[in-house]
Amino acid sequence: MRDFLPAEVKAREKVLSTVRGVFESYGFAPLETPAIERLEILQGKYGEEGDRLIFKIAQRGAKATEEADLALRYDLTVPLARVVAEYGDRTGKIFKRYQVAPVWRADRPGRGRYREFYQCDVDVVGPEFGLADAETILVLTDALAALGLKGFEVRLNSRKVLRGLIESYGIDPARETDVLVALDKFDKIGEAGVAEELRERGLAVATPLLAGVSGPEEELRHRLGTSEVGRSGLDEVDRLIDLAGPLVSDGAVAFSPVLARGLSYYTGPIFEVYVPEGPLKGPDQKKGSTSAISSGGRYDGLVGMFAGRSIPAVGGSLGIERIIPLVSSPEEGVVSPAKVFLAVWDTAARPEALATASALRAAGIPTEVYLGGERMGEQLGYASSRGIPYAVLRGPKETEQGVVSLRDLQTREQTAVPKGDLIAVLRDRLSAS
Amino acid sequence: MRDFLPAEVKAREKVLSTVRGVFESYGFAPLETPAIERLEILQGKYGEEGDRLIFKIAQRGAKATEEADLALRYDLTVPLARVVAEYGDRTGKIFKRYQVAPVWRADRPGRGRYREFYQCDVDVVGPEFGLADAETILVLTDALAALGLKGFEVRLNSRKVLRGLIESYGIDPARETDVLVALDKFDKIGEAGVAEELRERGLAVATPLLAGVSGPEEELRHRLGTSEVGRSGLDEVDRLIDLAGPLVSDGAVAFSPVLARGLSYYTGPIFEVYVPEGPLKGPDQKKGSTSAISSGGRYDGLVGMFAGRSIPAVGGSLGIERIIPLVSSPEEGVVSPAKVFLAVWDTAARPEALATASALRAAGIPTEVYLGGERMGEQLGYASSRGIPYAVLRGPKETEQGVVSLRDLQTREQTAVPKGDLIAVLRDRLSAS
Repeated sequence: MRDFLPAEVKAREKVLSTVRGVFESYGFAPLETPAIERLEILQGKYGEEGDRLIFKIAQRGAKATEEADLALRYDLTVPLARVVAEYGDRTGKIFKRYQVAPVWRADRPGRGRYREFYQCDVDVVGPEFGLADAETILVLTDALAALGLKGFEVRLNSRKVLRGLIESYGIDPARETDVLVALDKFDKIGEAGVAEELRERGLAVATPLLAGVSGPEEELRHRLGTSEVGRSGLDEVDRLIDLAGPLVSDGAVAFSPVLARGLSYYTGPIFEVYVPEGPLKGPDQKKGSTSAISSGGRYDGLVGMFAGRSIPAVGGSLGIERIIPLVSSPEEGVVSPAKVFLAVWDTAARPEALATASALRAAGIPTEVYLGGERMGEQLGYASSRGIPYAVLRGPKETEQGVVSLRDLQTREQTAVPKGDLIAVLRDRLSAS
Repeated sequence: MRDFLPAEVKAREKVLSTVRGVFESYGFAPLETPAIERLEILQGKYGEEGDRLIFKIAQRGAKATEEADLALRYDLTVPLARVVAEYGDRTGKIFKRYQVAPVWRADRPGRGRYREFYQCDVDVVGPEFGLADAETILVLTDALAALGLKGFEVRLNSRKVLRGLIESYGIDPARETDVLVALDKFDKIGEAGVAEELRERGLAVATPLLAGVSGPEEELRHRLGTSEVGRSGLDEVDRLIDLAGPLVSDGAVAFSPVLARGLSYYTGPIFEVYVPEGPLKGPDQKKGSTSAISSGGRYDGLVGMFAGRSIPAVGGSLGIERIIPLVSSPEEGVVSPAKVFLAVWDTAARPEALATASALRAAGIPTEVYLGGERMGEQLGYASSRGIPYAVLRGPKETEQGVVSLRDLQTREQTAVPKGDLIAVLRDRLSAS
């Protein structure tokens, strides 16, 4: 669990607001769901491992010893499905929403892994396969591009392709999940590793499938042609490459038969986005290439589990916690949002300081008054450490002359400004910088 | 627990962003703390009632049956105190922060009372009594004014005034909390009700205090003069009225000796803001006057409980969940952030629709492509229901003529625009509206 001090909040907020801007430019609208869901809503949706990682909330009062009935949000997709089931008359036949919000997992914290972290999702509920799937890929890669990332490699597959292969290799369809869980590790442990894992799971019969997905595409396409679901999956992949491919800014969409994706609820196209290069410096330079920074797919069954009737859906998310360190330099501590700092000469000067600050703010100039003691060195030190560009000082000399001293806290230059001109001069300086 | 559909998110976000803007104009910087805190951090800080309302998180794995060790954030002040103790070297001698975030209470939900609700806090950690206390009142009333509320009544007291009275009436200082808890209900149950409650608590000795706080101010001031802490409290009240009073936009700050505030951690000045009039309509008209919409005070002991050394602090908050319905009309359902809707004539038109949308977005025009079927009535119905102002249509006739039809979805007027002029025409229309 992390605390974000102001400088870090500012850096994160800049990234998140860029992302929200791109999502909204596609017409995705914001949804907010509560942090707490009923446990029964979440359980059984994320697989066995997922169920274990749900944070449960203890019962209250006299029921304190009973089983938990509430839990913390584990992702943003299941709450979306619940909302559509609950408010379908208001969300309409097509619901395009985004949500950028924290989720909680009772995982062992590790490097870059937190128990509270943000997810950043776009989803389209309603439409069958087609434009919506293409738009999901486009809005996510556009958001990445807006953050300064480029050279996207969009790896595309369809769960139907994988189902077609399972069929064509004569593997028991009931073992599909096991095959996919093993295949999902192809990138990490290689073909031999996946083969080993399949054998351990009593799925030696599935090992020839590995040669299929990693072999020549021509042969794979030929084999898929023998299965109806396989043909349908191949058609989805080809149509998506045609629709989205030409519009992905600075990147390519390619068929990646080895892609499986971990989550159990996908039913059609699935994708992952990799960024082999980015505006990265030093030891972070290679980070971009190691794992997907965005992913998603079609899940036509999940919403129906809540709505009681089939409602197709497609969506994806940005791995925003991984992206933030790639696109913004780590900042620490406190930066003031104020542009002007008002030093307070002595106790008698307090009412005037408050009144001047009030006038500056009314003129649209964010102004901070020093709230501590009266030592001038301490006051200016505080203002500099907070990154405030200008300080206004008014001692007995300035008061006598009817001026204020305007100090540039970076250059330390100080100029006398007639009191009545202060707002105009500050506006000038601030608009120039 | 509530879900906020997009139209409501937008209305709430407008209010919150106005408030954040005012907070930042004073130099308050944003802090973000996690939703989950260690239970021991929260326990014992909110009184008995508070302890009962903390949402506790069940232990994980093998420890599932043991006592909870984590809990959900109950307010934003205790986490601030923990942060200052933990990162004092980075937050500095004076830390001005705001936080606008949900908190959770295991309360029985009721009219306008939720188990997850937003708090909206400003606090200054570091300075002793003085400017910081005045600024806390000013920033909160400024935020309320920016939301369109006016005619503020700032009721001001000091815990030191109350302590002075307890002393001067010869009440056992150890019973201070009980006296304050009863006195806090003065507004709701009146003098007789509070007297009754005091007697029930075995505090009949304290009932003369009620005549003191509700009697003539002259007599009260005279009585307080006999107690050192009472004089000090009176001095705080008078100085704050002098400092903040003249600058509260459209409102008055007045001594309110009957004000006690519920929370146990206050040590100096305390205040509540009432709005007797506001831009309210219909049955809500009277709402503004019934209860405080902002409050706060000085708490010089709380941060020290974590830091191990005394650190003074003052802060306050807006009752934002009560304020939102006062200043924005309830909205429901989904509003698209898009300004232009691209109808899709048929399957063959899909690639062009995506390309046109991409070009419009690149020109800064938020554009939504229809992702459902091809029935034109359905498409335009969707766009209208989402509040999108313009639709662009391109059927065989338009394609033949090298134009697009631009439809104003409110007036239903439709004009032919040469395809190459679309961006310029749309920019024109959108900047005019």
